[in-house]
Amino acid sequence: MKKITVIFLLVCTTIFAQTADEKQLRSIYDAALTDGMAYNWLDHLSNQIGGRLSGSVEAQQAVDYTKKELEKLGVDRVYLQPVMVPRWVRGLPEYANILSEDGTTTSVPICALGGSVATSALGLKANVIEVKSIKELEELGKEKIEGKIVFFNRPMNPKDIVTFTAYGGCVDQRYSGAAEAGKFGAVGVIVRSVNLRLDDYPHTGSMSYGDTPVKNRIPAAAISTNGAELLATALKLNPNTKFFFKQNCKQYDDVQSYNVIAEIKGSTYPNEIIVVGGHLDSWDLGDGSHDDGAGVVQSMDVLRLIKASGYKPKRTIRAVLFMNEENGLRGGNKYAQVAKSKNENHIFALESDAGGFSPRGFSFDCSTENFEQVESWRNLFKPYLIHLFEKGGSGADVGPLKKDNIVLAGLRPDSQRYFDHHHAANDTFEHVNKRELELGAATMTSLVYLFDKYGIVTSKKIKG
Amino acid sequence: MKKITVIFLLVCTTIFAQTADEKQLRSIYDAALTDGMAYNWLDHLSNQIGGRLSGSVEAQQAVDYTKKELEKLGVDRVYLQPVMVPRWVRGLPEYANILSEDGTTTSVPICALGGSVATSALGLKANVIEVKSIKELEELGKEKIEGKIVFFNRPMNPKDIVTFTAYGGCVDQRYSGAAEAGKFGAVGVIVRSVNLRLDDYPHTGSMSYGDTPVKNRIPAAAISTNGAELLATALKLNPNTKFFFKQNCKQYDDVQSYNVIAEIKGSTYPNEIIVVGGHLDSWDLGDGSHDDGAGVVQSMDVLRLIKASGYKPKRTIRAVLFMNEENGLRGGNKYAQVAKSKNENHIFALESDAGGFSPRGFSFDCSTENFEQVESWRNLFKPYLIHLFEKGGSGADVGPLKKDNIVLAGLRPDSQRYFDHHHAANDTFEHVNKRELELGAATMTSLVYLFDKYGIVTSKKIKG
Repeated sequence: MKKITVIFLLVCTTIFAQTADEKQLRSIYDAALTDGMAYNWLDHLSNQIGGRLSGSVEAQQAVDYTKKELEKLGVDRVYLQPVMVPRWVRGLPEYANILSEDGTTTSVPICALGGSVATSALGLKANVIEVKSIKELEELGKEKIEGKIVFFNRPMNPKDIVTFTAYGGCVDQRYSGAAEAGKFGAVGVIVRSVNLRLDDYPHTGSMSYGDTPVKNRIPAAAISTNGAELLATALKLNPNTKFFFKQNCKQYDDVQSYNVIAEIKGSTYPNEIIVVGGHLDSWDLGDGSHDDGAGVVQSMDVLRLIKASGYKPKRTIRAVLFMNEENGLRGGNKYAQVAKSKNENHIFALESDAGGFSPRGFSFDCSTENFEQVESWRNLFKPYLIHLFEKGGSGADVGPLKKDNIVLAGLRPDSQRYFDHHHAANDTFEHVNKRELELGAATMTSLVYLFDKYGIVTSKKIKG
Repeated sequence: MKKITVIFLLVCTTIFAQTADEKQLRSIYDAALTDGMAYNWLDHLSNQIGGRLSGSVEAQQAVDYTKKELEKLGVDRVYLQPVMVPRWVRGLPEYANILSEDGTTTSVPICALGGSVATSALGLKANVIEVKSIKELEELGKEKIEGKIVFFNRPMNPKDIVTFTAYGGCVDQRYSGAAEAGKFGAVGVIVRSVNLRLDDYPHTGSMSYGDTPVKNRIPAAAISTNGAELLATALKLNPNTKFFFKQNCKQYDDVQSYNVIAEIKGSTYPNEIIVVGGHLDSWDLGDGSHDDGAGVVQSMDVLRLIKASGYKPKRTIRAVLFMNEENGLRGGNKYAQVAKSKNENHIFALESDAGGFSPRGFSFDCSTENFEQVESWRNLFKPYLIHLFEKGGSGADVGPLKKDNIVLAGLRPDSQRYFDHHHAANDTFEHVNKRELELGAATMTSLVYLFDKYGIVTSKKIKG
């Protein structure tokens, strides 16, 4: 009889908890969809400030603006965490031409890759060798490559359902192409934009010369997908087709910048910290609305929605707006380093850096036990069409927090449109849908609420 | 021992079947994403033809174009099914002003509702009474309404996660507002556009006067959501604010039009018919890309993808491009009527009429048994992030086929952006993403394949 009573009580508790959680999620989503601030904040970040490359005036404006807005929320603490960041400047104009042997010149859209050196003041003109991979480069060897511009033209695989998989399958060309081609005597590198569409936008992004000495560094630019198709066709018609490009980019000394941090102090376990974040810097071509203005304003809205719902967090919840994700990850590294030096106990960190599109779920970097815990919450998210709970990567900025007994997670919005805009001039405000952005903020807030309420499982025990 | 063998064989068969189905779905998705025709067809429908209101030249061009393209596919039969359709013409210009008592005139965007009568040649000017519902209209009564323009201003509910629910909660104002307001002596009706965003697009859509005698019909127009907010504020400041609008629309006699039908004949059960369709007509303000150019080209692509994958259907598969869904449903009714008169046995009908956005799943109008059958296929769709299998409505055009022993279904794409464009001038090609459209076509083809291969469950028995 006693056993039955215990079971009865357990069932009642579960039902009651479930109902309370259901109500809490409903009120979070309601608040986000009727009274959200994310879209207005994004409007300002995108349209009043614009592209926010690390070390730029705009990046500093974004620090000042978000700090001020976070202060208005009346949370317990808002502060700046100093971090030195690289400063790379595009230095327009940049342009390129395909030069046929008959003297015809065809202009094609390019943009310098972030971190690239400039061409000479007169630009760079050379024959072109097209390759589909770094491996192919190695097979061709110095004889075929020396003195030429290497044209990396491997497209994204359209068969990958999640476009981030296709991105992962291509981005080595952009990141390491110049360093690798330089080893074989190439004089420059042109990389097909990492974009699934055929259009006229060149997509920039970070690249690294690795340990290539400064004097051996060769300029690298992205070409639009239409431009890449044109160049490939021109080379097929005549392998002697030349390519000309000019870019004026320059790397300056590191400058002072900041992560922007706001926190609500936990009422019961203030030393257990939950982080939610996105990155405040963006590339310079567009206004960084999807990458990652969306993640920034969603993270800010998590704090606001928690306060608005009247929920008092047991644990400390921090929104961290990381600086310099795009070309250095200095902010993410600095945050983790300071956390470690202070012996802070982070239990959960959630990043939104995959665009402001309709949220579909989360990807988790955690133990099997912790993943089971998350899966037990799956039904709570069903009314909001959140269905994707999978193990996988979290995000670049929260990654450095990895240790035992932490759950790292990334918001997973619908990915189909993301690379149409990623790092290009059309990553702009009008391509973000207000409701999709708000649903993302509500979805993040809901998961933060659940981790705050239940803590993380350690050794099969939930600390509540 | 014998029993174990049987179980073993059953398990093997299931595993084998699962693997074959997995492979078939993979090849369907691969073909759609690498070699799809849907986007090119939509480009032509949207950019070469444009808005295709029933009875218009463009609607006829769409009939001719899609018939010709379907003939190129080499299916067994392509034909036109005659149907008489209404012809309502907007007759530009149409415009409106808010008239303050101090003489200030503020222009606001309006559009006549489909089926509305015109104002007089001089336009209509009157005092305005704002209501939030038809019920409120009845409460106010003739005294407060007579001689006035009724302004229906109930917004969509942003808390509804699926925007079609919010649409359902508002659309009575548009559809029946004029008939109801006319009963109380109103002289005209202005309806807030059924749009979740605040913007400057008026959204048209069908309305009905019910049994109101022709001489008592009052003109009805939609106002943009920003316009509605402006008018509501003006009325709050001064209830004597007047409204002026002028529209020149006219209903003509019915004209001849067609459903476009293409079919692949079944190899084993040719008399069991599977239908997949969308509607060829659209409203006139935009180019009808999402509503329902997307559904049209996806339905066409289903036939193409089945042929391309080398699969030989056991049952007869028809793509039906319905005419006149928007303002009459004549095509859907005609198709069902002819099917009935020929005693055709339709077992499954799938409609795509909810936009060309990322597909999330399907809604099914069918028996519990049939729904269980569909649910058994759920895991096959997981790699494609198709997660939504729910009971509910199917679609307006396949609805008239309803009977016992048929499964009706509607494709359910992500709904967040749909009503930003629905029936408005911004329902245009550039708002359709190629991959999202293609994923929808592949998702539809996959379900058609499964119903073709396994048939529908009748009395707990699958006819294979």
